[in-house]
Amino acid sequence: MSSFTKISPGARIGRNVEIGDFTVVHDDVVIGDGCKIDSHCVIGYPNPVAQGRPLVIGADSTIRSHSVFYQGSTFGDGLTTGHGVLVRENTTAGRGLRIGSNSDIEGDATFGDWVRLHSEVHVGKGARIGHFVWLYPRVQFTNDPFPPSHLCLEVAIDDMAVIATGVILMPGVRVGLGAFVGAGSIVRSDVPDIHCVTGDPARTFTTLDRFVSFEHGLKAPWPRHFRDAYPAVSWPLMDEIAGRVDDAISKHRSRAASK
Amino acid sequence: MSSFTKISPGARIGRNVEIGDFTVVHDDVVIGDGCKIDSHCVIGYPNPVAQGRPLVIGADSTIRSHSVFYQGSTFGDGLTTGHGVLVRENTTAGRGLRIGSNSDIEGDATFGDWVRLHSEVHVGKGARIGHFVWLYPRVQFTNDPFPPSHLCLEVAIDDMAVIATGVILMPGVRVGLGAFVGAGSIVRSDVPDIHCVTGDPARTFTTLDRFVSFEHGLKAPWPRHFRDAYPAVSWPLMDEIAGRVDDAISKHRSRAASK
Amino acid sequence: MSSFTKISPGARIGRNVEIGDFTVVHDDVVIGDGCKIDSHCVIGYPNPVAQGRPLVIGADSTIRSHSVFYQGSTFGDGLTTGHGVLVRENTTAGRGLRIGSNSDIEGDATFGDWVRLHSEVHVGKGARIGHFVWLYPRVQFTNDPFPPSHLCLEVAIDDMAVIATGVILMPGVRVGLGAFVGAGSIVRSDVPDIHCVTGDPARTFTTLDRFVSFEHGLKAPWPRHFRDAYPAVSWPLMDEIAGRVDDAISKHRSRAASK
Repeated sequence: MSSFTKISPGARIGRNVEIGDFTVVHDDVVIGDGCKIDSHCVIGYPNPVAQGRPLVIGADSTIRSHSVFYQGSTFGDGLTTGHGVLVRENTTAGRGLRIGSNSDIEGDATFGDWVRLHSEVHVGKGARIGHFVWLYPRVQFTNDPFPPSHLCLEVAIDDMAVIATGVILMPGVRVGLGAFVGAGSIVRSDVPDIHCVTGDPARTFTTLDRFVSFEHGLKAPWPRHFRDAYPAVSWPLMDEIAGRVDDAISKHRSRAASK
Repeated sequence: MSSFTKISPGARIGRNVEIGDFTVVHDDVVIGDGCKIDSHCVIGYPNPVAQGRPLVIGADSTIRSHSVFYQGSTFGDGLTTGHGVLVRENTTAGRGLRIGSNSDIEGDATFGDWVRLHSEVHVGKGARIGHFVWLYPRVQFTNDPFPPSHLCLEVAIDDMAVIATGVILMPGVRVGLGAFVGAGSIVRSDVPDIHCVTGDPARTFTTLDRFVSFEHGLKAPWPRHFRDAYPAVSWPLMDEIAGRVDDAISKHRSRAASK
Repeated sequence: MSSFTKISPGARIGRNVEIGDFTVVHDDVVIGDGCKIDSHCVIGYPNPVAQGRPLVIGADSTIRSHSVFYQGSTFGDGLTTGHGVLVRENTTAGRGLRIGSNSDIEGDATFGDWVRLHSEVHVGKGARIGHFVWLYPRVQFTNDPFPPSHLCLEVAIDDMAVIATGVILMPGVRVGLGAFVGAGSIVRSDVPDIHCVTGDPARTFTTLDRFVSFEHGLKAPWPRHFRDAYPAVSWPLMDEIAGRVDDAISKHRSRAASK
């Protein structure tokens, strides 16, 4: 390991871990086997809000350069980040979370399994995010309905939902199972399951079964054409959720037909 | 102090100052007593535009990791920043400025006392910002009305105004005393005192006395329900400005009643 | 050179190159004469996608602190960046590229000569950008029309086009020669040469000959009033392209007159 690295003797570091130059690893850090942490990172940034709980990084994770992780958050195996990522305290994430470069997770958030954030996503405090959610660049969470106040209405994103580039999610909104939010939208009210919305305020323009481009060989929900971008270990959960999306589509069609 | 820190002998550093690993402190820097500067920062980045004027950081300030401060700016006591902040030359700020992570202050800006910027705020060159202003994540200042040109119309934000997430402020606009700009708006003309605007172009949807949520126990202006988030030393100025907001509300009601 | 710098013996570094503290320079890097690389950078970040091709930085370039450049990209002479810039693999750029602080270039992009990006521009994979293009803060490229999918429709920006602050460019759009896109727009279809568009969806509000402010002494295209912001070596190409913009304006007027 490089002589330019500063690792606290209190850090618990697994086997076959690489830590890059000019990186600081603090106390109260648990790093799983096989992790790779790049240069110029701060791992386990101390803060009193974490109340002594450690930062836990699951096995086989990759944290790219210039990233900062606070004390008091826990990540499942296979975390992968871009560069310059900031994650504050008390966040919990499942397996295979990917966080794009320069994303900023403000703390107290929960992520399911196999969630993917692109670059510069800003996740507000207390957000609840399901499994297989996609957040494209510059998605922006909010939580204070009358800023500044002490009110906090957390945003919730259900499984397999997709939020495209530059969307603002207003305080307290819920985005449903398998829903799609188009680029640049402002989501001011809940998005029902399998609905596709766009604009300001975001309004329904179609439902998921009609959204994807059949001429390009795509089929909803997206695991039908994008399964290979995930490891096989994720497929059983993926298939279970895709099945629930199918059910929601069927129910929606039945309701539409009976009108 | 860490052996991994690079501090110029020309820097003037107060008592009880902590400086983190892998941080560079240049010449022409004055750091007040009791400051804490994290790892991986660049303090006093040299540039000819500063014309030799130093960077001055007031007492009891905290600068978090990966931040860059240029030569030639001056900050009052109690500056607090997030991570990855960039502040260029010739900016002047009062007491208690807070700058969120990854914010970018382009230079020649002025900030009053007790201003708060959330994450990723982009303050354009020459912006003039009053006391107790709130800038939420990704607020974006502009200044060139016919880009690219040499014209520069600076944006001005008056005391106690609140600009919510993702707002774009077009060149030369003035946001009035106690005004509120809703998330995702594009402000293309001046916002009068105590008016609440939203949309593109931002238009008035109410005035401040009708905006806040009485059912939640809130009362305008925001110091009426958010005073405890500031230190007592700030309260006399806060109360003075809140009184001016009250006066503006009264005047607005009188004018409305006389129509 | 500082004893706090980590430079691989495999890096090929020209004459009169300065490299700042706490910077890592990897193998497979070619740095031209007279370059200045700041502190806390990562130059030549290894990645298998680059397939061993080096990172090439042209002569007399300046890379500011906390920037990350991947293996496998090539930049002409006079590259200048802000702080915290990220450039991934397989990007090719001409002379005099300027990249603003915290911008993120995702890879496989091509830039002509004398292009300028302001802060926090996000260039998506595979973007094709002409000569003398201006991208203002937070311009956001996209490329997947049905996210997530394996489809990739690259955005193309023609010579001398100007994209103002906060614009989202939807997958596959082409912005024409000398075109102007107003702040906060969402570009959902192609923008014809010398057209000025704004809004969501971006629509034409005028053409370039009617856009600029004659009262302020400005004249389209912008090199007519902004030539001095570029070095003389760039002027022949600038004048050639400005001439093509003039031709496009003439053709547009002829067509309009003949209707």
